[in-house]
Order: sequence, then C-alpha cells, then structure tokens
Amino acid sequence: MHRRPAVSTLRPGGRVGEGRPDTAWSGCHALVHAQENARLHTYENRVKESFDAIVPVLKQISAIQHDADFAIRAQRMARERLGFALPEVLLDDAWIEQLDMRNLFAWSVFETYRRFCDEAIMHAPLGNNDGMEFQEFLRQCGFHKLDVSPCSDGRLAHVIRYVLRLPYRFVRRRSYAGAMFDVEDSLEKWVRTELIRFREGRPNTADEPTRYLKTVVYHYSSVDPDHQGCAAHGSDTVRAMQCGVDRLRGFQQAVENTYCCGASIDKLLLGMDTDTDSIRIHMPDDNGGVSPENYIDSLELYDATLHMSATAAERWIVDRVNEKGGTVLPAGMARFMVYLLTNNLSQLEYVRRYHGGHYEDIGHSERFIGAGIGFEEVQLRNLTFFSYMNTVEEAAADLDVGIRIFTSLNVSHGLPIPVVVRFDYHGDVPGARERAGQRCGRVTDALHGRYRELTDRGLLHTLRVIRNIDAADSIEILGSSVKTTATMMGVHG
Amino acid sequence: MHRRPAVSTLRPGGRVGEGRPDTAWSGCHALVHAQENARLHTYENRVKESFDAIVPVLKQISAIQHDADFAIRAQRMARERLGFALPEVLLDDAWIEQLDMRNLFAWSVFETYRRFCDEAIMHAPLGNNDGMEFQEFLRQCGFHKLDVSPCSDGRLAHVIRYVLRLPYRFVRRRSYAGAMFDVEDSLEKWVRTELIRFREGRPNTADEPTRYLKTVVYHYSSVDPDHQGCAAHGSDTVRAMQCGVDRLRGFQQAVENTYCCGASIDKLLLGMDTDTDSIRIHMPDDNGGVSPENYIDSLELYDATLHMSATAAERWIVDRVNEKGGTVLPAGMARFMVYLLTNNLSQLEYVRRYHGGHYEDIGHSERFIGAGIGFEEVQLRNLTFFSYMNTVEEAAADLDVGIRIFTSLNVSHGLPIPVVVRFDYHGDVPGARERAGQRCGRVTDALHGRYRELTDRGLLHTLRVIRNIDAADSIEILGSSVKTTATMMGVHG
Repeated sequence: MHRRPAVSTLRPGGRVGEGRPDTAWSGCHALVHAQENARLHTYENRVKESFDAIVPVLKQISAIQHDADFAIRAQRMARERLGFALPEVLLDDAWIEQLDMRNLFAWSVFETYRRFCDEAIMHAPLGNNDGMEFQEFLRQCGFHKLDVSPCSDGRLAHVIRYVLRLPYRFVRRRSYAGAMFDVEDSLEKWVRTELIRFREGRPNTADEPTRYLKTVVYHYSSVDPDHQGCAAHGSDTVRAMQCGVDRLRGFQQAVENTYCCGASIDKLLLGMDTDTDSIRIHMPDDNGGVSPENYIDSLELYDATLHMSATAAERWIVDRVNEKGGTVLPAGMARFMVYLLTNNLSQLEYVRRYHGGHYEDIGHSERFIGAGIGFEEVQLRNLTFFSYMNTVEEAAADLDVGIRIFTSLNVSHGLPIPVVVRFDYHGDVPGARERAGQRCGRVTDALHGRYRELTDRGLLHTLRVIRNIDAADSIEILGSSVKTTATMMGVHG
Repeated sequence: MHRRPAVSTLRPGGRVGEGRPDTAWSGCHALVHAQENARLHTYENRVKESFDAIVPVLKQISAIQHDADFAIRAQRMARERLGFALPEVLLDDAWIEQLDMRNLFAWSVFETYRRFCDEAIMHAPLGNNDGMEFQEFLRQCGFHKLDVSPCSDGRLAHVIRYVLRLPYRFVRRRSYAGAMFDVEDSLEKWVRTELIRFREGRPNTADEPTRYLKTVVYHYSSVDPDHQGCAAHGSDTVRAMQCGVDRLRGFQQAVENTYCCGASIDKLLLGMDTDTDSIRIHMPDDNGGVSPENYIDSLELYDATLHMSATAAERWIVDRVNEKGGTVLPAGMARFMVYLLTNNLSQLEYVRRYHGGHYEDIGHSERFIGAGIGFEEVQLRNLTFFSYMNTVEEAAADLDVGIRIFTSLNVSHGLPIPVVVRFDYHGDVPGARERAGQRCGRVTDALHGRYRELTDRGLLHTLRVIRNIDAADSIEILGSSVKTTATMMGVHG
C-alpha cells in the first residue's frame, strides 16, 4: 500500500518528503496525495451520477407512459441507465391513470441509496481505514478519541474523509444544524469512552494523560458569504464561530463540573469554506478557551508552500502553527493541527483540479435527508443533509432546516423529499435489533406527523433502515412509505 | 433518633429485638415500627387533604359567584380552607361571564403542588434519609446502587418510602407504564455509576465485587384482580410478571454484551398488591434468571409471625427466605430480601391500622400527572401518575395511559387534567438550567400538541417546573398554561 506523505512525514519514523505520491501530475503541491485525489474523485463522480441519472430517466419514462409496450421499454431504460428495474406495480396501471412520478422518484432514490450502501460496506471504496495507525498518532498527540460535530449541511458531509482526510470509521461524527451539538449527548459518549478506558484499557488505559478531543466545524462561503453561509446562523460567520466557541466551552464545563478529579476534554474549533473546502484552525487563547480571531487558514498555507519541497513546506507549516499558537498551544495539539492542515492541502488541490478552485454547486444540492444514527458511509459532499437524532421532538429545529432546503430543491419542482430514517445497533446485544426497529418506526411516524401536509400530498417519503454495526453486514431495509404492493392501487382495498 | 428495629436487627452490631419501637400500641407485630407509621400517616393525610379540599371549596366559590362581595368572600374561603389566595384576575370578571372553574381548579392544584414541594424539600417530613447507613448496608449485601422501576401507576407512587421503607433520596426510581423500563436509559445510568466508582471510588471502588441492582416492581389487585391490576398489561398479573422477568434479562444482557470483563448486574423482581401494599419477592432460578413461580409473599410472613417475639419472627423470615431461595440464592441477596420483607411488615400494619386492611380507593385517584425527570419528594400513594421521560415522542404510550386514567378521573366531570412537567438539573454545570428550561418548554409544547383536543377545550393544563438538585433549593416555577395575567381576559389583546 502506498504511504500517504502527509501522514508519514508527521509520524515518528516517517521521513520528511518520503514517498511523494507521484510525479506524473505537474504543478501539484509537494505534500499532496494526487493519486488518492484521483481515486476519491472517481468515486464521488460515480455515486453522484447514479443519483443524478434518476430525474432524466424518469422524464423519459414519463414521456412514453401511454405507449403500447411501455412497461417493457421503461424497465429496459431503468436497467440500462439506473442499473435496476422499477417495481412492476408502479408501472402496471399507467394506462389507466397517470404514472405516479413521485412514488417512482422516491423509490429510485431509496434503491440508489441501498446500492450505494452495499458498495460502501462491502468494497470500502473510500480506502484510508487504517484505524490502528491513526489511533496511535492521535494518542501521540495526547488524545484518545476524536469526536467531530460539523453542521448538518450537506456541503460538509465530506468533511471527515475528504476535507480532513481522516479514516472515517475511527472518528465519531455527529452532525447538527449550525454545528450546535447536544451537550448531554456528547457527555454520555465521554462517559462511555472513559469507562472503556478504565475497564478494558481501550484505546489506552485511564492513567495515561490523554484527552477526549471535541471538535466543532462551522462553515462559511467565500464566494457568496451573505447567502451561502450557514443557514442555522443566518449566514453570519462570526455568529457561527462564536456559537461554536460557546458550545465547546459548555461541554467542557459540563464534564469538569459533573466529574471531579481533573476530568476535562480538549477543544478544537474548525471553520470550513464550503466553496473551496479550505479550513481555518482556531488557536487557544490565554484563558483556556478558543480564540475566535486567531486562526490559520489552509489556503494561505497552500499558496505560501506551493513551490516548496515537501521538507520545506512542512517546516513552514510547523513554524506557522507554532508562531500563531504561541506558548499556550500544547505540542501535541500543534502536531495535530499540522496534520489536519497538511491533510487539507490535498483537498484544496482536489477542488482546484476537479472543480476549478471552487465548486459549481456552491449552494445546497443534497440528494436526500439522512435522519437517525448511522450513515458513516456517507462521506460525499452535498449527498445528504444529516440530522443526527433520537426523536423528531428534540431534532425538530434541525429537521425544519432540512425540510426547508428540500422544499426549495425538490418540492418546488413537484418532487418529494426522500428521507432515510436509519438507526444502527449493536447486534451483540439481544433485543437491540428490535429496539432499533421500533425507534425507526416511531421516528418515521413522528416525521410524517410533523410534516403532514407534505405527506398527504405525496411529497415526503421515508425509507426505514437499520444496521448491525457489530457485523460487517449491509443495511437492512424495514420498509418504506412508497407502496410497492398492489394494495396501493386499490386492487385489494 | 429512634432506631428502626427492622434495620438494626439485620445490621451487623444491631442486636435482634433491640429497640422495639413502642409498646403503647397493642397487638402490633414485633418487627413493626408503629411510631413511624403514625408519622407517615399524619403526613399522608395532611397532603391528601390539601389536594382534596380544592373541589369542595371551588364548588362553594362557584355558588356565590354572582353575589355582590364575591371576590372578597371567595378569597377568604380560599385562604381559610386551601391556605392560599386565588389570582385576582381569575375572580375579577366573574360578574360578566361565568367563573372559569377549569382554570381555577388547575391553578389550585399547581399551587398546592408547589406548597407540597416546598414543605417536602425544606422540612423533610418523610424522615428516614440516613443514606450513609443504607448505602453501607447495601454494600454489605453486595450492591452499590439500587435502581427501582415501578409502574407509573399512582398506586405505586409510595413504593420506595412507604411500601419498602427505603431512604428515597438514595434509591434511583424510574417509573414506566407496566414497569417496562427503557433498557438504554438504565444502561446509561449503569455506565455513569461504574465510571464514578472507577474515577472517584464512590460509593465504593471498582475493584470491590459489588453489583448494580436493578429492580422491577409489577403490581396486581387482590380485591379486584381482573379490573384493578396493571392497565399496561391488561390486568394480567402473569403477563406483568413475565414482562418484568424479560426486561430485567434484557438489561443484564445489554450490560454483559456491551461491556466485557465480567460486566453484569444483579436483578430483583418484586410484585405488589395495590390493595394491601403486600409484596412478593421472586427468587432466582437455576439458570441465573428470575423465577416467575417461586416467590415469598409478605402477607404470609406477617400472618405467620404476628404473635412471635422479634427474635423468633426474624429467624422465621430468614429461614423462609433461605428455604425458598435454596442454594442458588446468594447470601447477600437473601439478606437484602429479608430486609425488604421485614420493612414491608410495617406497611402491612399501616394499611391494617389506617385503612382497614385494604385501601378504599383500590382504583386510581391520582391528583396530577408528573412528567419529566424529578419528583423524588412524591412518595404518596395515588398522588401522582408518573411519566419518567425525555420526550413525549418516546413516552407517548405511557402518557396515553395516564391521559386515559385522568379522562375518567377528571375530564368526565368537566375538570382539566393537571400535568406538572418537571426537569431537575445539576446547577453546578453551567448552562444546565437553561437546557432544563428549554426541555421543559419543548415537552410542554409536545404534550399540548399530542392532546390538542383536550388543550383546546381547556381540559389539559401544564405547569413548567425545574429544580437544581445540586442545591437544597425548592422548585422553580417557569410558567403555566393557566393564564393569570389580565391579557387572558381579552383586556389587552
């Protein structure tokens, strides 16, 4: 396996400049992994094309719905261009009534999602899952767990695997509108993490002075800052940033005041430009907090180090981090910041090479809403609006943001909002599967209840999914609001 | 302070028969604490009378509402007989329209609840809060935490302090309809408990082989078994019992399969007759489970030991527990069972002495619904229907049971259902108060949303309450659905 220079130069034993990925690409940054970029781009393209083929194919199918051999031709088109056949029942009676395009659209999105998951789980197309190595590096930096809360916004859905180039299976990701994570939820995870250190010595024993690292990723738009920033914060970058600072402090205080004996966490605030995928890393301030003003922008680093050798570039980054961080920046945290900034250089080049420096879709163009707990395989920009949640009641504000986005994306064109409701569970625990299924049903009912008007008009469709994360299993589909049995047509009732 | 014989005889150092509470009561059981009974009964009476005075007083006030000096007379009656004045605005315009008795009723219940809480928190009228002694006894039995899930039913609201005579501040009580506790919630509490043992050595260090003891209390009715049993299980005692067995096993498996290295819990199943307050304690079976069939009934013990000396009675109970439990019953658990059975003898005598052997109100007669997390001071039978919950969405089934009960108790007479929504919080944690307040508001909105028809007819009223459990503070009222400002009357809008 090819070693990633960005990591190897920073890890003990790795030599600076070692294993520059390839020289075939001209003009690329010395610390960038161009080969990985190419692989990630192929994957992104393929997945997005599979979702984006749905509308044109359904348009063509709609156009021929009154032809004599309609069903046969429709299935041929679907199989050829979407890769799967459509449910017969959705096609059969098109000659009597109009084809129900909303049902067909929702069904096709769900089927594409299912196929996407199967591939992601079976073939690991995203690579970079060397968790042991990452966990060891994290430990050397002084952390035993990385917990990241980005915004729910689909333009950050790729933040873990693409923007920060992290092994996504070894990072806890919990997305919330405005990155406003739930303090109690994080506290619960902190408690579980610490108990496992005490009981099982995983990932390291509790006497090692490592910390739980909580990270918030807020976002902004360099191209259209007033309109394409974070909807939850009214596109106000300063507010998004300050809320991140406050929430991190709130979590830290919750840990410190709930548990004694020096219990605490470490905090990290990142900003992300959703147009260029550049990041800002905020430095600590003198009072143990995070500074809103003092940060390093990866774009600046990229430009400054573009023509340097790998060794010189890395030196430059290290110096810049130390200079910005000053004496209050711990060495381990500085090292981790250098790692993230260096990783991000690859993504900057990815956006330059494949998207002309900034994305064409600077606004929302998510393909579905993902609600519940799971979705770790979704690591692609603008694929999914996430709502990490246990109940619609608690996540109502987040879901409202998602529904508003999709009202503009889909409903305004007469297309339904596809929502995948998913709860992952530990199959080792008896009864956990049943409980996940019940939760899935409860949340689905509450969703249709909250957005009844959309439901009644066929403009909100849900897929119910669970997954056993103790096995390498694929997802398990429990059902869907798209009726694919004959009863929906009134044949049996 | 008078020592309770039931405890002292069982505790190391305590001599059997020592400190028999009093001899003034003739014919009472040698192990019964009659003085405590008298005190508990005075308290129960006083609290219930304060709630039960509301309807007669409001009836009288209603009868005089068109008299000239109505407001003055009404306030005098309220102050004299309820102990507080009514909000002027609810009385002022009675000459124009009818008095709004629903508002007055709900307001009075909430005010009575507030005064009840203040007394309970300030003056500790329930006594028996020697937690250190209890915790030490628990530890000697092999446990470090007692977590009890009774049914939400108000007829079990006194199970901790009256029926089992435990120091209620040192027992975790989480009530659910049918005693069907949430496995994930208990698991979370288990994790927190274990972490504190590891980190802080409280209540004992993690290397001591004590266990978390999870207890389920199902219930039945000896007087009218087919109608006055557990509503959530259709008054089917066998089902209630079996569901308790299953849920306990589910929790144990969740702990064992989520955490390795011998992680587990101990299980205890209790049955309770809501007419006599007698209990059944179920014995372990040969396979590490709980036996539905093999149990000891405290009534049987009471009758058998009624004329014995304290020493003989205690010996008899110990023998009976050992005989029933056999070799699979650990000594510590046997000791704890003897303790509970002995404690319960006092309650049996309480019901005999003050209620003629079984309660008059064998059915429901709760005064309000308590929803949320808190209410530890509510330890009185039929005072409160509990719904332990974070969200209406998850607790919907439990709440439906409560609303059904109160539809029959109150709505059928034109009276509203009073719901106290309360969330206790840790005041040491910055932001926790605000989050508790937000949660309170969210749950209240969801309640009124779920039962909109009742709300619209003025038949569902809510009080929003939070409490800092890190202080000895009283409750804090955030607001209520009963409008007590002039705007409700349309004066200002």
